[in-house]
Formats: sequence, structure tokens, C-alpha cells
Amino acid sequence: MPEPILIVDAEDPRIEPFRDVRERDLVGRSGFIAEGTVVLDQLLQAERFRPTAFLILRNRLEGIRSRLAGLPADIPVYVAERAVFDRIAGFPVNRGVLAHGTAAGTPWSVAAILARAAATGRPVVVGIEIANHDNLGAIFRNAAAFGAAGILLDETSCHPLYRKALRVSVGTALTLPWYRGGTGEAIVAACEAAGCRVLALSPSGDTPLTRLDRTAPAALLLGAEGRGLPASLMALCETVRIEMQPEVDSLNVATAAAIVLHALYSAA
Amino acid sequence: MPEPILIVDAEDPRIEPFRDVRERDLVGRSGFIAEGTVVLDQLLQAERFRPTAFLILRNRLEGIRSRLAGLPADIPVYVAERAVFDRIAGFPVNRGVLAHGTAAGTPWSVAAILARAAATGRPVVVGIEIANHDNLGAIFRNAAAFGAAGILLDETSCHPLYRKALRVSVGTALTLPWYRGGTGEAIVAACEAAGCRVLALSPSGDTPLTRLDRTAPAALLLGAEGRGLPASLMALCETVRIEMQPEVDSLNVATAAAIVLHALYSAA
Repeated sequence: MPEPILIVDAEDPRIEPFRDVRERDLVGRSGFIAEGTVVLDQLLQAERFRPTAFLILRNRLEGIRSRLAGLPADIPVYVAERAVFDRIAGFPVNRGVLAHGTAAGTPWSVAAILARAAATGRPVVVGIEIANHDNLGAIFRNAAAFGAAGILLDETSCHPLYRKALRVSVGTALTLPWYRGGTGEAIVAACEAAGCRVLALSPSGDTPLTRLDRTAPAALLLGAEGRGLPASLMALCETVRIEMQPEVDSLNVATAAAIVLHALYSAA
Repeated sequence: MPEPILIVDAEDPRIEPFRDVRERDLVGRSGFIAEGTVVLDQLLQAERFRPTAFLILRNRLEGIRSRLAGLPADIPVYVAERAVFDRIAGFPVNRGVLAHGTAAGTPWSVAAILARAAATGRPVVVGIEIANHDNLGAIFRNAAAFGAAGILLDETSCHPLYRKALRVSVGTALTLPWYRGGTGEAIVAACEAAGCRVLALSPSGDTPLTRLDRTAPAALLLGAEGRGLPASLMALCETVRIEMQPEVDSLNVATAAAIVLHALYSAA
């Protein structure tokens, strides 16, 4: 493990990547921030992302020393007492463990994710206009739990490596293959071209989940909570609904995804 | 509908129940706060709760006038411009609709909820040490979606009418029967005495969900995320697990509940 570097001044330029992490969205500029040991564990085993620096609360260092043991010596491990740590981060970081990370190696492509689905028979999850970071993170967590081949997000969906989305994903946004970009129509066309049956999940869907043929490889389309999927996309797909009480509005989008993914997983 | 009362001074004593709503937990003292039209709709149809006052952003009044049409004239409807409204509430309330409510009529009892389960064959959801308001609210939302007979919470679980729990429940904490109090052991004993099969949900459960006999009326025990259910309680119950990828830690507790409740609902 690299020799820990004690930071005593919150203005120390070396800890720039960790400054005001709640206020800044690092994504797309200079990497991302992973918070807590659960996300850190995913980062350390990720094939397409790598840590570039750590900032650790001094009294947490012993507890995570074993995790950092195999790291190359040129990745700095900064350590700070609580007062300095919170001043750097800009808010009280309960977990006391921050990592800054960046992409490494070739990013996943739509074609590679669809090929993975075809090879394994596992579903692909497709998010359209998912603007809520909690929901996006929860979709990742549930997709990973039920062995999805990967996640495709249209260009209007938010970014999975935004700090809050990454935290709610319990770090699976670093290990589950995903691609973000293009329109919903383009994604649906790519899924169909790859031989996926495209299922659009909606409270007004035609086929109840329990009557769905669960054997063919599927792409599961999810829309934003509230608005739902655009009608133009729904018209291109087989539509599925989850049986529920008629007087209830709808389920959270990530919860709905979990129910369908569990049904596909347990039928496989 | 009562005549709206314009409030121009954030210090006006009449709007005391709405002051600093984010900082104060009204529960148990003087009622609860319902935010937004979705929760308001549940409050207006609730049998055991009733609104006592409203605070509405002036430009939202026309949009919700029809909802308030049937209200008795003695329930005040306060109206304020954005600056005054936010100063009263203590933060920017996006939805611009607040109601203060209180209990009305007899509260639900454990016996009444278990009798409802026995009469309908629907499951009862039991929360043990659920300390996270978002999770508790989501458990209510999912229980309502899948027609649970009610929810029993041990005395260490948080309160369903806390503002954030109520909001995440989409107001179902006002319409779905629930009771909070007593120990987990006492709740399990009451469920068994009422003829419910008690199922404890855990990643280490013995019976996979898809092999569960779903025909008998069930009480579904949920524990806090992270810690899970106490071993002493698990030992008293049939334990159930949701099939998932072995490398994944676990699901969110409310998501896990949704998957089991959907399975029970669609088998009924």
C-alpha cells in the first residue's frame, strides 16, 4: 500500500479532486467520486475504471488498510482528521472514505453490451429520460442483483457516475456494463437488430407480467417516474404491466424494474 | 371551500403549524405535515386522519381549488406568495401545497389489522427496526400497491407520518391501516395467534421465493437494511430469500418487500 500522506491544511492543492464534492459534478470533466467502502470495493474490482487518489479519515485508515494493500505505490492515499476532512469535502462525510476515480481501458459500447446479452440470454435494461439520480442508482443496483447483461441509457438520462447515483448503485455503476447516449428510438432499433425482444414497462402495458413469456432474451425499457415512457417509443414495443391494486398510482421505476428483472431471473 | 386567507407576514401566528417544517418532527406532538397534491389526495380520502389547515402558494390555488371544494368552512386555507411561503416553511417547497393534519376517529389496532388480513387473505407487512424514513415510506407505497391488509411496526421503527416518510409513501401512510408499537417478538406472537404464517425475509433465508407456497395468509417480516432481522426473530419464523446473483450484497428492503408482495399478490 502507498505510504499515507497526512493533510493538515484544507487548502492543500494536492486534495483538489476532493474539494466541495457535494457541489460539483465531476462527471465528464475529471473523473468521479466514490464514497464509502461498499462503492470502493466495486471500484477496486472494476475492469474499466481505476482509482487515482484516496482521502480517508484518519481513524478509518486501519479499518480499510487491507483493501488498499494491493494498490500501486503511485496512487496517493491522503489522510486527514475530521475537521480538515469535512472542510475539504464541504459537508460531513459520514463514511470517512472517499476515492477519486477515472475511466481506464475501452468503454463499453452498445454493440458489446447487446452481444453480452445475446451470449448469456440475460436481459438488457434501457433507461429513457431517467433524470433522478436516486432512481438511476437503484436501477443499477437492481439490474446487478438480477444479473442483467448491461444498461443502455438515452442521452437525456442522467449520468451513472454522478456521486449520488454511484452511491445508491452500491458501486455497481463501476462493474456492470453500461452505455449512455443516443435517442430512445436508436436504442430500440439496436436492441431489435441484435435479436432482443423489446419490452416497455408501463402501468398501462398490455401483457401482465405473470403471463409474459420469459424465455426469450429481452430489453426492458423504463421511463421516468411520473411521465413514463414516450408514447412514440411505447408504440414500437411489446408493453408489459405489473399487476397491482387499481387505485394505486404506480410503483417507483427502480422497484418496478426489480420486480420484472426478478421474474426474468427466476424463470431463466 | 373555505375562503382563502392571504398571509403577507411570515411571522403571522396563524401559520404556526407550518413553520420550519423541515426541521421539526411534528409527529406525536401536534399532528403531521402533508406535502404536495399526491399526499393531499390521500389525506382527503383518509378515514382516520383529517386536515386541520392548508398553506398554499398563491399561484397554485386555482389548480387545487376543486380538491378543496368539499371542505368544511372552518378549516383555514392560508395562501402566500413564494417569498413568504418559503420563509414560513424554512426551505423552498417546490410543490407549493402543504396541509397540516391530525388523527381522527379510532386508531387501527394490531388485532383489527390481523382480522383484516384473516378476512381478506391479504398479507400483513411487519417492519422491525426500520430507521430510514425513505425506506419506511417506500415500504408503505409498495404494500399499498400490492393490497397488503396493513403494516405493523415495532416500537424501534421510525414513524410513518414523519414528513419525509409520508411523502415517499405517496400518502398511503394515511390510508393503509398500520400500527406502531411493541417488540418484534410480541408482533410475531400476535401474527401466529391470528393464524398468519410468519415469513422472515433475508438474503440468507431457507426457502427461495419462487418455491414458496403462496396460498396461506402471511405476515412478511422485514429488517433494517444492513443489519437485517435479529437472529432471535429469524429463529421464530420460516425464512425466505429472493433469488439473486451471489456476488451482490442485497436489495433495498422496500424493493425486496415489493418483489415478495408482488409474488403473493399475483398468486392470489
